[in-house]
Amino acid sequence: MSKKPSIVRFLPILYWGPRYNKDTFAEDSTAAIVVAIILIPQSLAYALLAGMPAETGLYASIFGLTIYALFGSSNTLSVAPVAILSLMTAVAIDKLSLGSETEYIAAAVTLAFTSGVVLVLFGFLRLGFIANFLSHPVISAFITASAIIIGLSQVRHFLGVEAGGTNAIELSTSLLSSVSNTNFVTLILGISTILLIILSKRGLRKVLISLGFKPRIAIVFSKSGPLLAAFVTSFLVYFLSLDQQGVQILGYVQAGLPTIHVPEFSSELVESLLGSALLISIIGFVESVSVAQSLAARRRESIELDQELIGLGAANLGASFGGGFPITGGFSRSVVNFEAGAVTPASGLITALLIMVVTVFFAPILYWLPKVCLAAIIVVAVYSLIDFSVLKRSWIYSKADFIAVFLTLILTLTVGVEVGIATGVGSSILIHLYKTSQPHVAVVGRVKETEHFRNINRHKVEIFEELLSIRIDESLYFANSRYLEEFIFNLVATRPKLKHVILMCTAVNKIDLSALESLEKIAETLHRANIKLHLSEVKGPIMDKLATTDFFKHLSGNNYLSHNQAVEDLRESEPLSSDPKVRL
Amino acid sequence: MSKKPSIVRFLPILYWGPRYNKDTFAEDSTAAIVVAIILIPQSLAYALLAGMPAETGLYASIFGLTIYALFGSSNTLSVAPVAILSLMTAVAIDKLSLGSETEYIAAAVTLAFTSGVVLVLFGFLRLGFIANFLSHPVISAFITASAIIIGLSQVRHFLGVEAGGTNAIELSTSLLSSVSNTNFVTLILGISTILLIILSKRGLRKVLISLGFKPRIAIVFSKSGPLLAAFVTSFLVYFLSLDQQGVQILGYVQAGLPTIHVPEFSSELVESLLGSALLISIIGFVESVSVAQSLAARRRESIELDQELIGLGAANLGASFGGGFPITGGFSRSVVNFEAGAVTPASGLITALLIMVVTVFFAPILYWLPKVCLAAIIVVAVYSLIDFSVLKRSWIYSKADFIAVFLTLILTLTVGVEVGIATGVGSSILIHLYKTSQPHVAVVGRVKETEHFRNINRHKVEIFEELLSIRIDESLYFANSRYLEEFIFNLVATRPKLKHVILMCTAVNKIDLSALESLEKIAETLHRANIKLHLSEVKGPIMDKLATTDFFKHLSGNNYLSHNQAVEDLRESEPLSSDPKVRL
Repeated sequence: MSKKPSIVRFLPILYWGPRYNKDTFAEDSTAAIVVAIILIPQSLAYALLAGMPAETGLYASIFGLTIYALFGSSNTLSVAPVAILSLMTAVAIDKLSLGSETEYIAAAVTLAFTSGVVLVLFGFLRLGFIANFLSHPVISAFITASAIIIGLSQVRHFLGVEAGGTNAIELSTSLLSSVSNTNFVTLILGISTILLIILSKRGLRKVLISLGFKPRIAIVFSKSGPLLAAFVTSFLVYFLSLDQQGVQILGYVQAGLPTIHVPEFSSELVESLLGSALLISIIGFVESVSVAQSLAARRRESIELDQELIGLGAANLGASFGGGFPITGGFSRSVVNFEAGAVTPASGLITALLIMVVTVFFAPILYWLPKVCLAAIIVVAVYSLIDFSVLKRSWIYSKADFIAVFLTLILTLTVGVEVGIATGVGSSILIHLYKTSQPHVAVVGRVKETEHFRNINRHKVEIFEELLSIRIDESLYFANSRYLEEFIFNLVATRPKLKHVILMCTAVNKIDLSALESLEKIAETLHRANIKLHLSEVKGPIMDKLATTDFFKHLSGNNYLSHNQAVEDLRESEPLSSDPKVRL
Repeated sequence: MSKKPSIVRFLPILYWGPRYNKDTFAEDSTAAIVVAIILIPQSLAYALLAGMPAETGLYASIFGLTIYALFGSSNTLSVAPVAILSLMTAVAIDKLSLGSETEYIAAAVTLAFTSGVVLVLFGFLRLGFIANFLSHPVISAFITASAIIIGLSQVRHFLGVEAGGTNAIELSTSLLSSVSNTNFVTLILGISTILLIILSKRGLRKVLISLGFKPRIAIVFSKSGPLLAAFVTSFLVYFLSLDQQGVQILGYVQAGLPTIHVPEFSSELVESLLGSALLISIIGFVESVSVAQSLAARRRESIELDQELIGLGAANLGASFGGGFPITGGFSRSVVNFEAGAVTPASGLITALLIMVVTVFFAPILYWLPKVCLAAIIVVAVYSLIDFSVLKRSWIYSKADFIAVFLTLILTLTVGVEVGIATGVGSSILIHLYKTSQPHVAVVGRVKETEHFRNINRHKVEIFEELLSIRIDESLYFANSRYLEEFIFNLVATRPKLKHVILMCTAVNKIDLSALESLEKIAETLHRANIKLHLSEVKGPIMDKLATTDFFKHLSGNNYLSHNQAVEDLRESEPLSSDPKVRL
């Protein structure tokens, strides 16, 4: 659709950069401040979720936002750590059972790098269509199950105990065995933090507006609940010395900017993480592109799928060069960015700059931040992702969809995220193939005194013992070609007087090579049983393709333009007897 | 189709057994003799190919034929060892790197058992449709590549050297490194055997008929080339003491009937062979059912796919109880059985009896049979399976089919049979999903002074700047629902005056939940951009399904019975301006 030259498609900044001015800067800056307020605590929290040092979340945000601003095709997507990918990162690396923290960090960096390479490759090879195999309902079920696992994984921070696991069963068992060691100071602090965040989200805007603040300012502060909570809890810990009473704090956080370096990693590590990187790339891409697309369309802008792959891939490569972990466009952040008025990717650059300032100057005060505060931020964020309605919707609408949804949900919860999503994708594909492998095929007869042919099971029609008219209501391809063979051969076996079979091809849009060979086999087999095979109403494009083959040599019968013509012709060549079983 | 009661379906012998008489016995016996003549040397040869002791081939045939006669639904299928499955058996067990021959035999028996269980389960669960995922062209490519590997694997017997490998590269390398040790006596004997078999096949029938033999007798003897070759070479080895000159002989062959026992095996062994058993089951089923179906149809009989699964599964269970390896219905043998006049499965029982007699009384004379004779029998048999024409056919007919064929052929040859067939299946499914993930979607306009709407790129039609008519030429499901979103959003981005989008659903046969959610998202997103979404000409069954949901609440526009009505209605509600870019 877009008529931009290809270099501008590849580097969208060349398009919006030269058009940049004071007004767009003012709009982008406002949005950038709001996003930074949300993203700073999120970056820390999702680093914790991914099992990484807090500062690496900030690094991942800085690099992700900056690089995406250069390559991405969406004006409002906010590319940084997100909950689900952080969980998937932790799960992928836990599987490797690494010994030291250094090795763990190296693996996360390698995962971001590999995922970046996969995305960029997919972009250049135009493989974005792979994301289509994740159906909406499967994604919904996967997100709900992942959100539950994430929530469960944070409970230990509320209890102030050690517990682990990568699925709901492991996590619950582990928590139950250590619940007796609960630290109640931590628990009270955690629950209070959740309440603070929820109340600030719901009430703050109303209160501020009623106090006479401008609506825009009010909105900004209403999004600042998590940041506010971080400040409040840090001060509480510091002044009440809560760390002495067992409240776990973040501790030393590396100040200053990350050093940029090409990550070192073994090919062995890449190999063992490749599967996880592939899943993370596809899930990240689907989530990101879905929000980018709806936001763009609301302003009648468009995004380019292949360029999005390159933008997200580059952002992940950037995150890995800065020592971070896999990232993608976050849903709620991007919506905030959009609604706060971001008009170009520069908004992301400004957010990155703000986070950089925080990283350089404010890292020391993060020392007192209690981990349970970050856990509370995570729990509030993922709670809104839990939505079981897809179970009911799919049950009502289609049992086949329900099976895929149910399997994804249950297996993600009980076995883990990777098995869950893989089963979801696999089962949707199998179910689809199963449904199309049994196409609707009808025996048809002529409605008396018309030229119309209708299903003999639904209409009173005229049929003959020597002639069988079959209408196929689907394109023919490998998964249904054997079904057609079986259908025809079984019909033939019950009709001793049969001399002619006519296939009515009005609804056949495609015939692949497998189906063509099936048709040849049917023609030849019927010929040996002294039955002629005819075709009628074959569409133009298919006729063109069949003409490149010797199919019509195999066909013992004719190819008719109209089905009625076929029946009339065969009737003239020999007498046909009406089937006595059918009453007109 | 069949009206038989279910017990008769499950045990077809209850149907044909009571109707059996002298005439059918005479016909079945003649066919049984011909098949036995072919099958005895084949059983020995394919046992060799599978890496098993010669007698186990005979056991597998006896049990396979007998059990299939009880459960199978085909009157003429000859279920016993076949070349491709024997190769796959050898490949599957070689992977396990077992130490002793006893372990090897136990693994082969376990493989037959597991494969039998898989087939029977598939039959009861009515999962026969899984075979549909093997497209005809992929199977052809797989058989050609496998036949080449089988041929190469037999070359060592002609050279009288040691060599091994499970793909063409390994086999060639191994053969090249040992070719200097060639035993020329063996080589000459081998080449002479091939010539003998070919000549007897081509010339014997003519010669016999011209000598005054009856045609039927002539046909039987013309099929006896391999058996003749076995006799001739055995006598040559015995009288000329060729074994002293390096010709390898079969050696001691266990005489007498096999003992029936439930195979003992470890669950670990079953687990490591499960993948191979699954592939062997599916390949075996597809090959077998394909020939059974065409033979049945030629006599206007029918076979039942699910019963065939049970029949083949039971035959494999039988083979494993008798100490054999995986078996299935062989193509050429079954055709011979059919053409020689077999009318009921009793023909298989009689063949089994004949082979039993041979096993009991003639095993000792097999001592002198040179291995190169069996290799020659295999080479002649698989040579006819090699057929590269599918490459050319698919190249001309469809490049997508060609890719799947090419990958199957190359990967089977260079990596191995299991990777080859798995890639073939995987790539055909991916290619199919890729093709349907980009359905034909056309912007349509009205042909002047008619009520017909046609593609604006192909016809001179009237379109409006405020209204977009889009016709979708495919059912909507998860793999193409995002494509539709992208298509519509991109169109909207280029049409600033747009107020209405109408989706014309004449060719939409199904809408799954994923596609439904995409339509809701499209409706909502367009609504936010002040564009109304309408539908037209939705088919009845889809309307019924949509009515179970709240879709029409999301729809900002209307649902019209006819597309023309939609355009007329919207035209009345507000003035539309003809698109100036389009000339009528």
